[in-house]
Amino acid sequence: MTTAGLETPAVTIDVAIMEDNIRRVQAHLSKHGVKNRPHIKTHKIPALGKMQMAAGASGITCQKIGEVEVFADAGVSDDVLLTFNIIGKEKTDRLMAVAKRLKRLAVVLDNDIVAKGLSEAAVRHQGEIPFLIECDTGMGRNGVQTPQAALDLAKAAMKLRGLRFEGIMTFPLKPPGASLANPKMSAPGSLAFFKEALRIFGQAGIPVPVVSGGGTPAIWTVQDYPMLTEHRAGTCIFNDVMTVASGTATWDNCAMRVRATVVSRPTGERAVFDCGTKVLTSDTYTVTGHGHIMEYPDATIPLLSEEHGVVDLGNSRKKPEVGEVIHIVPNHCCVVSNMVDELYGVRGGKLEVTWPVAARGTVR
Amino acid sequence: MTTAGLETPAVTIDVAIMEDNIRRVQAHLSKHGVKNRPHIKTHKIPALGKMQMAAGASGITCQKIGEVEVFADAGVSDDVLLTFNIIGKEKTDRLMAVAKRLKRLAVVLDNDIVAKGLSEAAVRHQGEIPFLIECDTGMGRNGVQTPQAALDLAKAAMKLRGLRFEGIMTFPLKPPGASLANPKMSAPGSLAFFKEALRIFGQAGIPVPVVSGGGTPAIWTVQDYPMLTEHRAGTCIFNDVMTVASGTATWDNCAMRVRATVVSRPTGERAVFDCGTKVLTSDTYTVTGHGHIMEYPDATIPLLSEEHGVVDLGNSRKKPEVGEVIHIVPNHCCVVSNMVDELYGVRGGKLEVTWPVAARGTVR
Repeated sequence: MTTAGLETPAVTIDVAIMEDNIRRVQAHLSKHGVKNRPHIKTHKIPALGKMQMAAGASGITCQKIGEVEVFADAGVSDDVLLTFNIIGKEKTDRLMAVAKRLKRLAVVLDNDIVAKGLSEAAVRHQGEIPFLIECDTGMGRNGVQTPQAALDLAKAAMKLRGLRFEGIMTFPLKPPGASLANPKMSAPGSLAFFKEALRIFGQAGIPVPVVSGGGTPAIWTVQDYPMLTEHRAGTCIFNDVMTVASGTATWDNCAMRVRATVVSRPTGERAVFDCGTKVLTSDTYTVTGHGHIMEYPDATIPLLSEEHGVVDLGNSRKKPEVGEVIHIVPNHCCVVSNMVDELYGVRGGKLEVTWPVAARGTVR
Repeated sequence: MTTAGLETPAVTIDVAIMEDNIRRVQAHLSKHGVKNRPHIKTHKIPALGKMQMAAGASGITCQKIGEVEVFADAGVSDDVLLTFNIIGKEKTDRLMAVAKRLKRLAVVLDNDIVAKGLSEAAVRHQGEIPFLIECDTGMGRNGVQTPQAALDLAKAAMKLRGLRFEGIMTFPLKPPGASLANPKMSAPGSLAFFKEALRIFGQAGIPVPVVSGGGTPAIWTVQDYPMLTEHRAGTCIFNDVMTVASGTATWDNCAMRVRATVVSRPTGERAVFDCGTKVLTSDTYTVTGHGHIMEYPDATIPLLSEEHGVVDLGNSRKKPEVGEVIHIVPNHCCVVSNMVDELYGVRGGKLEVTWPVAARGTVR
């Protein structure tokens, strides 16, 4: 079937671009001796995780136990890092159950209450949980605030039965600068934080086998963080408007394109297409507008409703007709996969494969 | 089961509040002689559509053919308005197929290309399609721009085989003011537009049996639009931060609450809970922040990641502990239902019912 047979809206993946993205990321990380642990929350599709593993990834990253379960069922990798504080009996029981089916399922933690709950689960299930200390190196989200706090928490957790310290992690790996949560607050960088943490862990005689960084833009500067043992990135498999805005990809590196139909041209300068926030989402973060139209690069998308995308053609000499199909690179690919039940892999104008988004809906 | 057994995150509906919302909306519209045609895109759950019908609704509104199909399968109502320009052979074929299972399936249109496609489908399937002309009365989205354009398009479409003119519609019903798409542009109001349209349709001898308004805030002022025959609103079944911000609901009228667990307290003024844009979405539209925490009304949610919600406790005297469960009223309830496979109906602290979100994923 050609892509012309795909009813719109449809989230398509250019398979050749995706393959190239997987290859380039792996090559760069391998060249610098950093293990690649792709974050599967971007696609939630086991077949794509297997492609990343086949290209040389050392394991995968998941964000929810539900994702770990789906990817374990599919046998994608037996080395999984779950980068979320897991808390509560139901979730820690699920964690231990799926851990038994994997060679290694490590978690992160940033406080003693989570550590205590994990330890109790490990004892309850006669297992052992490897853990990394999550460090806030500027994001303003989860994470201990200082290297000393990382050391103190690691020491406290190491005293609990069933927990095994493996290292430290952050998201995202970043230079010093403003915090995302509070742009007015200047935040420390990952390099200084990790350096000091490794110094004091060393002083305390505690080996730190894993130093884990994250984020797509930082892939290309991992060499600036010589202590890194592994890197976790999700977006880079597809790329999106945010990646392009960060200067680390071009439109030609963007594999995800939302195929849509222009359904209205209410004015000379306005077009409306047949999808909105229920496919593209409202994510804007670092960019303005709601996506990039490949066929109309000078047009903008100032407004999305749930099922409508409003295009401003004021700066676009070319204007689409009603009925015309357009392709939109979304602002943030990781949330778009999660909106639909299937992604369509296309190559050379042909529909090559339909991937069910197997871990969509795993909100827990 | 008590709600304490619900793993987080979970999207809960307070059934008593929802029942009261359904009742109050129906009572107000009935009092003013305006038919109620609830928009089911907010919940996508046939059981809730049936409750709205039982309360006195005259039919339902859908936004996608997929929603019409799911609600037709469930037998919710045989009187459906699909408020979207339907274009292309696949979609118009599906439209005609589902129309045969209903007493009335009307659509909207705002241009002649859509009209022509609908006419061809009606001829192909030997059916008839009732249609309303969509009017842009200030939203800056779909719709003809002037009453004269509405009349011209209606006349042109009435000449096409298989189409039957039924009336005019807009979204949202609004007073004169700024356009959402372009806040700098002052937009005409719905009242003046409809008045003039009815005058010139009358002059042309064309009866306009249906005048359809839309939007939750406007429910409470339908009496200011004496020509309205029906009103379409979605959000009002649950309400959300945007409805409260519009001044037409209180927190106690908000039936949807996202149950979440605090997983981190990285600093004295920061908490992080276990859901983000993959449940709450990034929708902000008219409000700031990312939701209202019922237990911590003075806290704000400045940042959501995909699976983290960052809380600023700077202005909140009370602070939550790690492990504590909180309940968040989302900014925009209509997009939150669409993120999950189930909504949980709770009453008096007990889980009363689990509703599959049957029409989730109907992106086409």
